[in-house]
Amino acid sequence: MTSTLSETETYSLLSLSLACFGVLFNTFWDGSGEPLIASIAFSSLAFAFCYALIRWLGNAFIRRGFKGKDLCKHKQTEIPETMGAICAMVYLFTLITFIPWPFYKDIVVATSGGGNRDVMKELEEVETGRFLHRFPHNKLASYLSALLSLQTVVLLGIGDDLFDIRWRHKVLIPAFAAIPMLIVYFVDFGVTQMVVPIPLRPYLGELFDLGWLYYVYMAMLSIFSSNSINILAGINGIEVAQSLVIAVLIVINDVLYLSPFTTYPHPATDSHLFSLYLLLPFIGVSLALLKHNWYPAKVFVGDTYCYFAGMVFAVDGILGHFSKTLILLLLPQGFNFVYSAPQLFHIVPCPRHRLPHFNARTGLLECSRVEFKRPLARPIAECLKLLHRLRMLDVETDAKGQVTSSSNLTLINLWLVWFGPMREDRLALGLLAFQTAIGFLGLLVRHRMALLIFTADNW
Amino acid sequence: MTSTLSETETYSLLSLSLACFGVLFNTFWDGSGEPLIASIAFSSLAFAFCYALIRWLGNAFIRRGFKGKDLCKHKQTEIPETMGAICAMVYLFTLITFIPWPFYKDIVVATSGGGNRDVMKELEEVETGRFLHRFPHNKLASYLSALLSLQTVVLLGIGDDLFDIRWRHKVLIPAFAAIPMLIVYFVDFGVTQMVVPIPLRPYLGELFDLGWLYYVYMAMLSIFSSNSINILAGINGIEVAQSLVIAVLIVINDVLYLSPFTTYPHPATDSHLFSLYLLLPFIGVSLALLKHNWYPAKVFVGDTYCYFAGMVFAVDGILGHFSKTLILLLLPQGFNFVYSAPQLFHIVPCPRHRLPHFNARTGLLECSRVEFKRPLARPIAECLKLLHRLRMLDVETDAKGQVTSSSNLTLINLWLVWFGPMREDRLALGLLAFQTAIGFLGLLVRHRMALLIFTADNW
Repeated sequence: MTSTLSETETYSLLSLSLACFGVLFNTFWDGSGEPLIASIAFSSLAFAFCYALIRWLGNAFIRRGFKGKDLCKHKQTEIPETMGAICAMVYLFTLITFIPWPFYKDIVVATSGGGNRDVMKELEEVETGRFLHRFPHNKLASYLSALLSLQTVVLLGIGDDLFDIRWRHKVLIPAFAAIPMLIVYFVDFGVTQMVVPIPLRPYLGELFDLGWLYYVYMAMLSIFSSNSINILAGINGIEVAQSLVIAVLIVINDVLYLSPFTTYPHPATDSHLFSLYLLLPFIGVSLALLKHNWYPAKVFVGDTYCYFAGMVFAVDGILGHFSKTLILLLLPQGFNFVYSAPQLFHIVPCPRHRLPHFNARTGLLECSRVEFKRPLARPIAECLKLLHRLRMLDVETDAKGQVTSSSNLTLINLWLVWFGPMREDRLALGLLAFQTAIGFLGLLVRHRMALLIFTADNW
Repeated sequence: MTSTLSETETYSLLSLSLACFGVLFNTFWDGSGEPLIASIAFSSLAFAFCYALIRWLGNAFIRRGFKGKDLCKHKQTEIPETMGAICAMVYLFTLITFIPWPFYKDIVVATSGGGNRDVMKELEEVETGRFLHRFPHNKLASYLSALLSLQTVVLLGIGDDLFDIRWRHKVLIPAFAAIPMLIVYFVDFGVTQMVVPIPLRPYLGELFDLGWLYYVYMAMLSIFSSNSINILAGINGIEVAQSLVIAVLIVINDVLYLSPFTTYPHPATDSHLFSLYLLLPFIGVSLALLKHNWYPAKVFVGDTYCYFAGMVFAVDGILGHFSKTLILLLLPQGFNFVYSAPQLFHIVPCPRHRLPHFNARTGLLECSRVEFKRPLARPIAECLKLLHRLRMLDVETDAKGQVTSSSNLTLINLWLVWFGPMREDRLALGLLAFQTAIGFLGLLVRHRMALLIFTADNW
């Protein structure tokens, strides 16, 4: 990868940045500025910075040992690894500088020193020309706790990329990173009740207080969201592109609550604005990374990116109060996890790499296989054969009916079992189309069928 | 360094931790707990964790290339570098888990969903058995912004230790890291007035609004605080020990405002409590690091520690509203910077290392010298000779009166010029005694002589 920008790139990024600075300047100084417009400008700026920084810093990363070889290519040159860290840093920096836009300025009129707010002026809501209101001050703590959690996941993710932490420890990284958010949630909001679905109401009542289990649920969601993205990985662009699809789907869901057709102010307006502010810059930096990570990849994203992306979704879903919708959007990742589980937990032998196999003659990817040197236990062998008959696996048997090999248990290999060998980018596109379709189905279920089990769709 | 704890160490740390957990459990569940007692327990826990982690992770750091040789020893084995990163991580984690103690829990009684606080209950101030009150909720944002700034400096510091950023860029790291704090200060408090000293009042009035210059001042303070600690470095233990001295002096200053002899509640009580909560855990982790970094050092601290320590002081001084006192306590560092400036800015030639010179025969440190191959410009040579006559430098001249060499311009070398060669730990102890003496003098000036130029000492 060259470490400089071409002339076209330089001028495009520069003009984009200048335009964004103009917009920001306007929205800031006339005071009537829309935080949402500022957020879009910030996201575009984040795209430009991230794009340039990936190019400029790639070689420094290689020199410091953050590098890897692409096993699915004819020519295996070394390319920079862990570029997700750059993404994440730009993202965090963007969210921090964005703070003055969505939050009111608390005006302290008099102080006796020592940080006291002796006389405070409430800002009257003179919000002329504004579609959407600003946040009250008590949301600032949530926002900052979200930033802290994201920054923690980046620190721990870099630690993982540096020290290659053991599998059973690294699974817990997102739970550690969620702690700042959970603690501030506890001090600041602390609502742990959930609405009970209609069929269960006779037993549990209308609201059920989960108590500390609610915090366990939130920690589990962080673990699931980050790690499920981390294991649906291995071909160029798939980590970033799937995250982008999920982010865009959440944005669509958010916009449903903010569109002119929705009553305003809606009880969930704030939550979904909050969600947008977190996601738009994420889309910005991810696009910049995807541009370099898409087939043929010029950089790798590293575990840092997967943790970071998963944590953005978890934070967004938890503080935006739509964690169940988030789970619907992560269904393909969930399926991949459940499907992989027999290998992850070593019920079926698991080779070191489960990437698709690159056929150097055709230039296409084929599903990779695991050979069973020792015969499998009978019930497991029968399960594999059943999956084969359901077209959910490709199993080979010898003359005696013994299972000798099967395709590896990942969604990526399953796709190749279904549709045959194909080029790496076609494979990624297929999986993304699948993710998108499931996502739209999820949103449909969320908004059309939720009424079957809840009394009101909060849209 | 062995990577395990001895039996004595294990049992001491374990019993310390258990005692602390007991205290925390008590202060949390009976509800009357003192945040200050909890803070002390947390700090001791932080000491125990940091101590154990430094031991356990040292070799992993060496394997990943974070290592260095000690130039001032007979046997130059490789020891782990950047252990300040462990310190900082433990510190941040401590401050995050501490949050529920000093802050009231906002009790949301009813919510219409979507994160709304439709009915809120103000917690009545039933604080029986408590010496000091808890913080109101609006301080949470400041606290979180402090954490964000500290975490940012750690991230950038690790980046520096990884990529060896150029000198003129790394100077700015603390300013970048200060941004979260400054932005939240802007949104959340925004007071930029300063009290004018009496002699200047006829010209400026009683209060002078610095406006955006106040933010520049805060950023400069962060840069000064971090970098001045970073350049008073090079011998075993000096970075950590000087930070500890400064921290303890600030704690003494804080305690002056909280002691039973002070009127309560005092306008500055909150600020100084806030400061204590930030500093006590810092003292905990720094002691654990000092134990390993003191002569003969078993680990190095890395630039990360210096940035982190400087940033803790800057954040503490700014959000605790005692930045001028902080500057008084940093006078030795300030002197070292001014004294070093001619070499830092290449007015006088600067060798690659300015560490004292280790005399292998005596085992003592001697002041290191810079040889002038080309004759110096006349005014510079005259200045050096003047400094020599004032006993502020050791200069050698040849027969013609030309300056041929001088001791390097650092406080550490100056100390050796004054008191002759000495062992590394004696040198460190001498400098620390100097730092302590100046610090106490500073506090005396602050509290006894401030009345000469201000109308009231806010103590």
